[in-house]
Amino acid sequence: MSLKIALAQINFLIGNIAANVNNIVEAAIHARDELGADIIVFPELTITGYPAEDLLLRPDFITAANNAVYQLADRVAGIALVVGFPEYEAGKLYNSAMVLHQGVILACYRKQALPNYGVFDEQRYFSAGNQPCVFEFNGAFIGLTICEDVWQMGIIDATKKAGAELLLTLNASPFNSGKIHQREAIVCHQVRAAQIPLVYVNQVGGQDELIFDGASFVADQQGDIVFRAAEFREQISVVEFDGNRPVKSTCAPLYNEISSEYLALVLGIKDYVRKNGFQGAILGLSGGIDSALVLALAVDALGHDKVEAVLMPSRYTQDMSLEDAILEAEAFGVKYHIIPIEPAVNAFTGMLAEVFAGTAKDTTEENIQARCRGVILMAISNKQGKLLLTTGNKSEMSVGYATLYGDMAGGFAPIKDVPKLLVYQLARYRNSLSEVIPERVIIRPPSAELAPDQIDEDSLPPYEVLDPILERYVELDQSAEEIIAAGFKREDVARAITLVDRNEYKRRQSPPGIRITARAFGRDRRYPITSGYRGI
Amino acid sequence: MSLKIALAQINFLIGNIAANVNNIVEAAIHARDELGADIIVFPELTITGYPAEDLLLRPDFITAANNAVYQLADRVAGIALVVGFPEYEAGKLYNSAMVLHQGVILACYRKQALPNYGVFDEQRYFSAGNQPCVFEFNGAFIGLTICEDVWQMGIIDATKKAGAELLLTLNASPFNSGKIHQREAIVCHQVRAAQIPLVYVNQVGGQDELIFDGASFVADQQGDIVFRAAEFREQISVVEFDGNRPVKSTCAPLYNEISSEYLALVLGIKDYVRKNGFQGAILGLSGGIDSALVLALAVDALGHDKVEAVLMPSRYTQDMSLEDAILEAEAFGVKYHIIPIEPAVNAFTGMLAEVFAGTAKDTTEENIQARCRGVILMAISNKQGKLLLTTGNKSEMSVGYATLYGDMAGGFAPIKDVPKLLVYQLARYRNSLSEVIPERVIIRPPSAELAPDQIDEDSLPPYEVLDPILERYVELDQSAEEIIAAGFKREDVARAITLVDRNEYKRRQSPPGIRITARAFGRDRRYPITSGYRGI
Repeated sequence: MSLKIALAQINFLIGNIAANVNNIVEAAIHARDELGADIIVFPELTITGYPAEDLLLRPDFITAANNAVYQLADRVAGIALVVGFPEYEAGKLYNSAMVLHQGVILACYRKQALPNYGVFDEQRYFSAGNQPCVFEFNGAFIGLTICEDVWQMGIIDATKKAGAELLLTLNASPFNSGKIHQREAIVCHQVRAAQIPLVYVNQVGGQDELIFDGASFVADQQGDIVFRAAEFREQISVVEFDGNRPVKSTCAPLYNEISSEYLALVLGIKDYVRKNGFQGAILGLSGGIDSALVLALAVDALGHDKVEAVLMPSRYTQDMSLEDAILEAEAFGVKYHIIPIEPAVNAFTGMLAEVFAGTAKDTTEENIQARCRGVILMAISNKQGKLLLTTGNKSEMSVGYATLYGDMAGGFAPIKDVPKLLVYQLARYRNSLSEVIPERVIIRPPSAELAPDQIDEDSLPPYEVLDPILERYVELDQSAEEIIAAGFKREDVARAITLVDRNEYKRRQSPPGIRITARAFGRDRRYPITSGYRGI
Repeated sequence: MSLKIALAQINFLIGNIAANVNNIVEAAIHARDELGADIIVFPELTITGYPAEDLLLRPDFITAANNAVYQLADRVAGIALVVGFPEYEAGKLYNSAMVLHQGVILACYRKQALPNYGVFDEQRYFSAGNQPCVFEFNGAFIGLTICEDVWQMGIIDATKKAGAELLLTLNASPFNSGKIHQREAIVCHQVRAAQIPLVYVNQVGGQDELIFDGASFVADQQGDIVFRAAEFREQISVVEFDGNRPVKSTCAPLYNEISSEYLALVLGIKDYVRKNGFQGAILGLSGGIDSALVLALAVDALGHDKVEAVLMPSRYTQDMSLEDAILEAEAFGVKYHIIPIEPAVNAFTGMLAEVFAGTAKDTTEENIQARCRGVILMAISNKQGKLLLTTGNKSEMSVGYATLYGDMAGGFAPIKDVPKLLVYQLARYRNSLSEVIPERVIIRPPSAELAPDQIDEDSLPPYEVLDPILERYVELDQSAEEIIAAGFKREDVARAITLVDRNEYKRRQSPPGIRITARAFGRDRRYPITSGYRGI
């Protein structure tokens, strides 16, 4: 027996069933005619995209998805299709995979392991299946599994016991830094233990917070990877099986950590802009490192002609900040405007004079400056139909070192999940490709420039101390005492944790951003705003 | 046998374990000494409050909660305590209830039915128990159940079969309009079918979006309610049982629908302000019905001396709007400021002149006005430590008829889940208590006053048409075709649905508000922003 299996690593648009069906048909015809495939495997929940969230609660949506998959059976002949869809039966919804061939349904499998942690809410929508599924095709006995199923040993074993000689797995496995190594290690470990080859097809593309990184692969029964598709882009490939032995094919190399983080951020911006129909993107360029990095990412995602920068100096902006911002805009070849904010700041100061009479200056006055910039940026965004990108990083989001409706104003927050130290690394990485960010921007002490001679370290521990504390507290759920025991000063830990605890209300109103760590602020970390919990 | 059971309907602060333990001890001592109770029953997850969300993933938090409940055993003698807590054992977390008496653990029950729909995410945190729990106390055989358990027939039956003559149920059942009738009807139906009396203890208080309405009750084995605690406030009461027959006691009357909605909104504001430590609240007062209602709610929640109004007229503000706003502020006796926004609007217009040269006026200019108001309000909020309340209603939130960082700026959105027609009903209801909102505000056509002679109906169907379409689409998940079939014009349905679909990005950045319907925007309705789904 020889079998050619196509892996359809496609970038779907959530909820657009008609477009997704057309993509499926096109991919199937391409795989049949150009690649000679006998069978083509698509990612998890192909028909709807993943995650469709509460669209899955709409009866009209579910009906449309079910109709679409049954109609697919007649759309393409001469190749078997393995597609994922939300299967409705007898009042229950399943996360299913159906095998269609020559107008006939060969098999339908219901996902057994439904993840309900981290960014996953599958038990909100789906009932779990409880049966393995094996079908015969061209003399081969093929088992079906879906994503989380293959992270659990029992399900692979049961499918093999049911007669499978080869496993197809439909996935929507989101990226975070290092995830691909974890994913391949765990799945290949299972494959090796069960001694069954596996075809792993992953979705690719950005969807709000999530990046799906592709990197679909085929492992032989020793758990060795004999084929790997590219990361971060669409690819339809075919792998030949001789019996149940996959023939060694091309393995796309894996990007290193920093490159993969950079590419994930670029893909996230690109897909958010494209899928939401924006004309391009704008951002405020301050001369600081954060906005420099976001500019680089935006230009790499969209092209320099689709990106516009706005420079909004105030009395506290140092000359070198404005100079560096201009240098950056020119290095990237983007259009830029210089709009000093003094007229608006003065107007508000005058309007508030009576109400504020007798009060001392505090962060209120700093916030007014940030909010004047927010108004300017949103006005240009509204007028031009361009997405406003915010430039805040994860360290700032953690401790609330940002102004609601000020620098937090915008539709998308690309580096919201990038800690400050990683911002520097990513900037240096980008400069290693071509020198676009002035060295001075990378080496000068970071400052919000909202008060005279202000620098971040006036009110925060140095980022070399802050970032690891935040990682331990936010991502690893360590207690203050554990963090102190690991060698951090009690006062630094107390300062950081108190700020994290107090600023949930800001994070709740922040725009979505791209998840690149194992726990991002967003659907990944769901904290009450009203809370008596104090980490210290 | 005679048994006195206390129902502790208490308002807890999520996450503050030490404070909650003190509340438990105080309530127990009060019940023992003042009410002569033998046993006191607390709401679900007493120790942590409900819902503690991802705090439940923190090992330090879980350890503290478990330590606290074991230590409670020795804190109060002479009365049995039934407390809820997140029980950790062998790598698993359970939503449990423990019975403590004289330093001994009499029983521990693990919740079997874990809701994972609507506002509930219990399967994210908890493993399900699989055993009924019955303990003997003073000769009575008492069964334990927790919230969702008693909405499912099987669990009550199994508990009775295990020997229970009487059920104690710990609950955190959130309010929505009409919920109390549904709750009592379902639970009493189960009680009647199983022929077992039930003590139902509910949490009370506001927690971010959720209101817990109390109204704890006791039903006899015929399913008749023989005791009911008040709605929307704390109450510790005792009910005597003669054998397993509860002695008829006082039944607090139920509020009618409109009163209960009004009281829920008042409690929501009061608890958000109090639990988050604000000095009071401020709001923008436009002379329109929405801000008039929010002012009334805020004053009823906090007292007139804790509320401040800001009137911010523009060139498009009609004289009568400013007059009515002043009348409202004076009728409620709140401090108010008048700050015309022209200086800031003019400043921005000048600053943007070059970038906007050659473009036509559009909603950008309207948004600038709304955002100038947002900057003013946030500045006063920041300076005074008062919570800024937004005044947008659910109809506006649905169709995006609001400006991000403008009228949507604020920490809490009290009427975010109140459709416009209900805003009118609530205003009339409030006026029926005392005439505080000028009649003209209620009868004039609603307008955002952001352009000359603008009224809402210029761009939206009348609210009598819009609101029922929105309810069907947003709350009931009906398709466009179903709504049209119900008698609505296709063009109205298309307009409304298209706007709902397009405005998810705005809702995602809106402040939390009080849930009063069966589906609010927030944790209740989780839609993707990037979405190819089109309802029409």
